[in-house]
Amino acid sequence: MHTEVPGGEFDRRLDAVRDRIADAGVDAGVWFGATSIEYVSGFAHIRTERPVVLAVTIDEVAITVPRLEVERVSGNPRIDAVYSYFDYPQGAPVETAAGMLDDLGAASVAADMDGAPGVMGYEGPALSEFVDVESQDWVARLRYAKSNAEIELIRESARWANLAHRYLAEHTEAGAHPVTVSQRASLEGSRAMLDALGDEYAVRTRGDGPVHAGYIAGEQTRLPHGHTANERLREGDVLVTGATANVDGYHSELERTMFVGEPSDEQADYFELMLEAQTIAIDALGPGVELAYVDDLVTEYFAEQGVAEHAQHHVGHNIGLGAHEPPYIDAGADGTMEPGHVYTIEPGIYTDTYGYRHSDTVAITEDGTDRLTYFPRDIESNTL
Amino acid sequence: MHTEVPGGEFDRRLDAVRDRIADAGVDAGVWFGATSIEYVSGFAHIRTERPVVLAVTIDEVAITVPRLEVERVSGNPRIDAVYSYFDYPQGAPVETAAGMLDDLGAASVAADMDGAPGVMGYEGPALSEFVDVESQDWVARLRYAKSNAEIELIRESARWANLAHRYLAEHTEAGAHPVTVSQRASLEGSRAMLDALGDEYAVRTRGDGPVHAGYIAGEQTRLPHGHTANERLREGDVLVTGATANVDGYHSELERTMFVGEPSDEQADYFELMLEAQTIAIDALGPGVELAYVDDLVTEYFAEQGVAEHAQHHVGHNIGLGAHEPPYIDAGADGTMEPGHVYTIEPGIYTDTYGYRHSDTVAITEDGTDRLTYFPRDIESNTL
Repeated sequence: MHTEVPGGEFDRRLDAVRDRIADAGVDAGVWFGATSIEYVSGFAHIRTERPVVLAVTIDEVAITVPRLEVERVSGNPRIDAVYSYFDYPQGAPVETAAGMLDDLGAASVAADMDGAPGVMGYEGPALSEFVDVESQDWVARLRYAKSNAEIELIRESARWANLAHRYLAEHTEAGAHPVTVSQRASLEGSRAMLDALGDEYAVRTRGDGPVHAGYIAGEQTRLPHGHTANERLREGDVLVTGATANVDGYHSELERTMFVGEPSDEQADYFELMLEAQTIAIDALGPGVELAYVDDLVTEYFAEQGVAEHAQHHVGHNIGLGAHEPPYIDAGADGTMEPGHVYTIEPGIYTDTYGYRHSDTVAITEDGTDRLTYFPRDIESNTL
Repeated sequence: MHTEVPGGEFDRRLDAVRDRIADAGVDAGVWFGATSIEYVSGFAHIRTERPVVLAVTIDEVAITVPRLEVERVSGNPRIDAVYSYFDYPQGAPVETAAGMLDDLGAASVAADMDGAPGVMGYEGPALSEFVDVESQDWVARLRYAKSNAEIELIRESARWANLAHRYLAEHTEAGAHPVTVSQRASLEGSRAMLDALGDEYAVRTRGDGPVHAGYIAGEQTRLPHGHTANERLREGDVLVTGATANVDGYHSELERTMFVGEPSDEQADYFELMLEAQTIAIDALGPGVELAYVDDLVTEYFAEQGVAEHAQHHVGHNIGLGAHEPPYIDAGADGTMEPGHVYTIEPGIYTDTYGYRHSDTVAITEDGTDRLTYFPRDIESNTL
């Protein structure tokens, strides 16, 4: 089973980061971003007003954390030294990190940002007041291509997403409340995942389950980012669903357009256009394929079919630790798909009455693709 | 009922922002931060790779959004002009915003950041490549003090949090799964809120409910940011709970230390120490009271009781649209509590075996305090 990031992954990531430190000719790499810190060290934390700072040199890994994270980092086999301040603002996070860098002998660093992000209330000094700081986005770039182990975690996520999505379908009927159906499917999907995985389950949530499934319904589907209204389902409603599971921090994305009862001819026509656009995009994926080419193919198809004005967004995005990650399958994107990239494929059609979008998660391999989500895409399977 | 932000609030906020624009001598205020954009305009959006930019001048409000948000902003009565790009990276969000500023006649602006945040994948130019940009944190400061209307939304949140917390307590028993109890309480609390509020409910969620309740259990409570393990509850477990509800974007915070069965003498002793520390802090709150003073009082009490080494964080934080907002009740904080501030009061004790923390949400009024959460705090009420 592939239910947590294997330890060897972190060796590989540290090696990659250290190659970049050497190439840049700096003494250390430094990260303030929570996802980057997790990617490099395996230490995941809840971002609050309390900054966390990770430093990597050629032979050491050190971290600065608030007191309340000390126990959670102390057992981490990849972190050699832990520095802490009690809390913020009484403690001095960036000054503490500067002391850590001094102990590491790091006078010049390459950092993902120059000090703690201000959005959570941090108002102290920048790191560049203490050491020479140049900018780097090494981890964001490393995250483009997933390892086989990471892809297996996303595949495991897709499995539980598929189950929860089946529960969504089973509980859907006219008169049901979409919020309750969503929460029930999430509860049942989470319980099944926890009971099935047992001790293999990587604990990641706090007062919540690892599986989420839900949908928006009716007129809200006109909006790509619509909400779940406080209205019970009606016969003839269009649903746009979503399901995912958190597998040691990794996510998949499964979305379906579904119908409550038989669709009208118009609904069925738009569904089939959306489905064909998704099929065109999936069939075009592969290593070395230009990102913009796939988006252009869908745009051309929509134009041929006379529905160009109903498109509102690009075809998809990379996914992994983050729900949306670069690169994007977008007409303006530079570059090509590479083995290890994992894309959502989700061209949508949004009319004045309803929206139509599936999303599947597809890995690019050395010689083709590997579709990780597998809930049926056809209209019969999605008519409830 | 107080279930959504009244329209007049936005007039007040725009007036406040315009006072600052005039004082700063700039042509416009500009925001890239999603919460600030929501605070000023009432337009809430999901942050992705697609930047959103709000501009306010003395007599106009304009916004730049991706195509997929156009319908959601077009009906907003406070937004005079909508600019859009199709998607990112094919569109040019900051260039579009620069064109918007040009149309507004704004050559000098004060912005919350100099361009879109890079963390979501945006890599384009900074705003300062087009106009003179100085930095401001006006909205973050305005959000310190809530209006009466905002406090009523937080009070409404506390009502549904209290109900969900009651469900948590009712479903808790040895052998139950903490994730399932949490998700069931969230489902039932959400359903009750939706059915009770009906059309008064401000739609805010997507495939999920507005109420969340849950807990961490057993050894995980030693960690202030512990997780919910995949282990069923046992007689003698300590729980640290949390419950909240989203009321038009506003939140309360209710947390309790609870016992599965009768606590041991040691558990009861630590509970009472934690409870007394919280009481000391709540009793000390009020307008004009120094933030640091309240944190110091708790630190002194813990030192007197010989449990200083079991403290791991400050007493609390402001709360509202954000789950954690400045200012903080912290020994290093400058400034005083003012009417409209809404604080969580949550001193904790963390031993080698378990953690003990309540959190209540308390508003500072003109002449005292107003406790918004009201689940019983005593040990008998929290022994299940």
